[in-house]
This record gives sequence, C-alpha cells and structure tokens, in this order.
Amino acid sequence: MKKSFGARTLIYPTPVWVIGTYNKNGEPNAMTIAWGGVCSSKPPCVAVSIRKATYTHGNIMERKAFTVNVPSASHVKIADYFGLVSGRNVDKFSAAEHTAVKSDKVDAPYIQEFPLILECKLLSSSEIGIHTHFIGEIMDVKAEESVLGEDGLPDMEKVRPILFGPEIQSYYGVGKYLGKAFAIGKEI
Amino acid sequence: MKKSFGARTLIYPTPVWVIGTYNKNGEPNAMTIAWGGVCSSKPPCVAVSIRKATYTHGNIMERKAFTVNVPSASHVKIADYFGLVSGRNVDKFSAAEHTAVKSDKVDAPYIQEFPLILECKLLSSSEIGIHTHFIGEIMDVKAEESVLGEDGLPDMEKVRPILFGPEIQSYYGVGKYLGKAFAIGKEI
Repeated sequence: MKKSFGARTLIYPTPVWVIGTYNKNGEPNAMTIAWGGVCSSKPPCVAVSIRKATYTHGNIMERKAFTVNVPSASHVKIADYFGLVSGRNVDKFSAAEHTAVKSDKVDAPYIQEFPLILECKLLSSSEIGIHTHFIGEIMDVKAEESVLGEDGLPDMEKVRPILFGPEIQSYYGVGKYLGKAFAIGKEI
Repeated sequence: MKKSFGARTLIYPTPVWVIGTYNKNGEPNAMTIAWGGVCSSKPPCVAVSIRKATYTHGNIMERKAFTVNVPSASHVKIADYFGLVSGRNVDKFSAAEHTAVKSDKVDAPYIQEFPLILECKLLSSSEIGIHTHFIGEIMDVKAEESVLGEDGLPDMEKVRPILFGPEIQSYYGVGKYLGKAFAIGKEI
C-alpha cells in the first residue's frame, strides 16, 4: 500500500557534489549541492541547480565555468561545511584547510584533496523557480591515481562518494556491488 | 597525483531510476535512466535526459507526463532489464511480471512493486546533443508504507535505492549512515 506525500523533492539517491568557482578577483569558493546530475553523453554535460542568492551563482555567471568535486565518505564533514556557510563571509578553503588548484581547461578551481573532479565550461543557464539550472560541458575529468581500479578507471569502492537523502537530511556511503549494467537484466 | 581522463561522463554517483510512460494508445512502458537529478525545490522538479531514439521520448512528448520510479537493490535485475530492451518491441511490464498503476495526478503509470515513485507533469524540454532534457514538475510522491521510518518519511536503508557507476557500468547499493546534513559540518 502506497502513502501519498504530496508535491515534494523526496527522492533517493541524490549526489553530494561540491561546486568550485572563482569570484571576479580570482578568489576560490566551494559550495555543496545535491540538485544535479549528468544531462548529456555527447557532448558530456552535467546539470546543477543553484539558488540565485548564493555566492557561487554570481561566480558562475562571472567566470562562465565551474568544477564538480566528488568528496569521499571521509570528507563528509568538510562537504557539509561547504554547504553551511557562504563564501561572502568566509574563505572556506582556508577555514577547511583544503587546497584550491587552478583547472587546466576552465576558469575555475578544483579541490586537490577530493578523489574525482570535473572541469566544466558553462553552456547555458535557465530559471526554474528559485533555482538557476546551469548546464556545464565537461572539458576534463581528473581522478587521484590512488582511487583507480584494475581497469584504470575510478573504482567506486575507492572513490566512496556520498549520497544525500533530501528531507531526511542524511548522508550515506556506498554499499555492496550489485551487478554489471546492461548484463544482469538479460536473465529476465 | 591526479590523472586526466579527458571529456567524459565519468562521475559518481548517478541514480538508477525507471521512467514510466503511456504511449498514445494508453499502453504502459518503463525505461531505466541514470542521467537525471532534482533541479528545483519550488516548484519541486526533476530533470531527466532521454535520447530522442527511445520509445519513452515519444511517449513523454505525446502525454506530457512521466513517473520516476525508484527500484530497491532487490529489483536490480528488473531495473537493468528495463534499460536493455525497447518498448517498441516488447511489453516490458508483462515480460518482467510487474504492475503498471495509473497515477493519480498525471497521465503516466507508476510501478507498483517499487518502493518510491514520483508523478511528474512535463514542464519543458530542451535539446543537449543526442539527449532531450525533460523538466518534470513533481505533482505527488508516493512511498510504500513498509519503507517508512520512525519519522514517517521513506527510510534510506529500507528504500535501498541503487547507484550506477558510468563507464565502469556497475550497480551498487547504499552503505552506512555517515551523518546529519546541515549539522556535522559545524564542527569545522
């Protein structure tokens, strides 16, 4: 029996990603989001939704670029911190003792300590309610060599990304391997 | 030391969600996606990217509605199956022995056996490469009473949503609770 909850953003899982930007003076900022996802394979693109009131929103508009930084489970407090305070009031990188590195391909900083990062060039923006929906073209992906698996790609169990549960306001880690995509369904 | 992977959709985690639609004759279809995410809080909206070549694409255009169905880890083979075959060639609900239920709020079917579902009205669509980016306004959320936690909301460890790793083509479950959002970062 299903219970109705009305019109709410109540869906699992959502990612925990940290958006890296520069302000007009080239000072780095980091802001955590859960409203985002891949939105195109070719060109490779991600969509992230950010409120107009945020410091990051102005930075993306100014520099036309951002990074998407994937924290590991071990970074969960830092990831939460980056979503709690505004870059208008504090230098979050200094406060969190994390390192902003200039991207190779776009005008935005990435977080050195995080295992997996995307450098994105702003393709477009549109308004949806109180959020601006930014589409970024992925110009490069970088991963720590220590999180690579035997196939040379980032290993999910080494990257250990964080999940967010909206409304229950909770973070979770990654669990067991469940199977190979485009393969296990052939048994049906 | 970070290794560069070039321009690719290589980011974790992405969700495993199944999109429910009717065709012009009212026949239900289900298709699995990983390119999607929440994109607005007010109004509550989700964005999903679907290739023009798919049967689901035509259905959404025709009926201006879709559901987002969250499978549990126990549904991983069914979820993979829904992404392997086209509704043009087979009645996937019958083949998978799953039940399409007419939504209350929108013109699309949801999957009775899945624990958490969203009924969405099409707000807009835009083209990004080979994908169409559909924005759906969430008109209702429904969850099985058996997956609710003590707070009355869906419990992540009972819903047990599936994660997808692009490129590594692998499914994973949800792991350990890591902490409370907007709270644990205060220690920084």
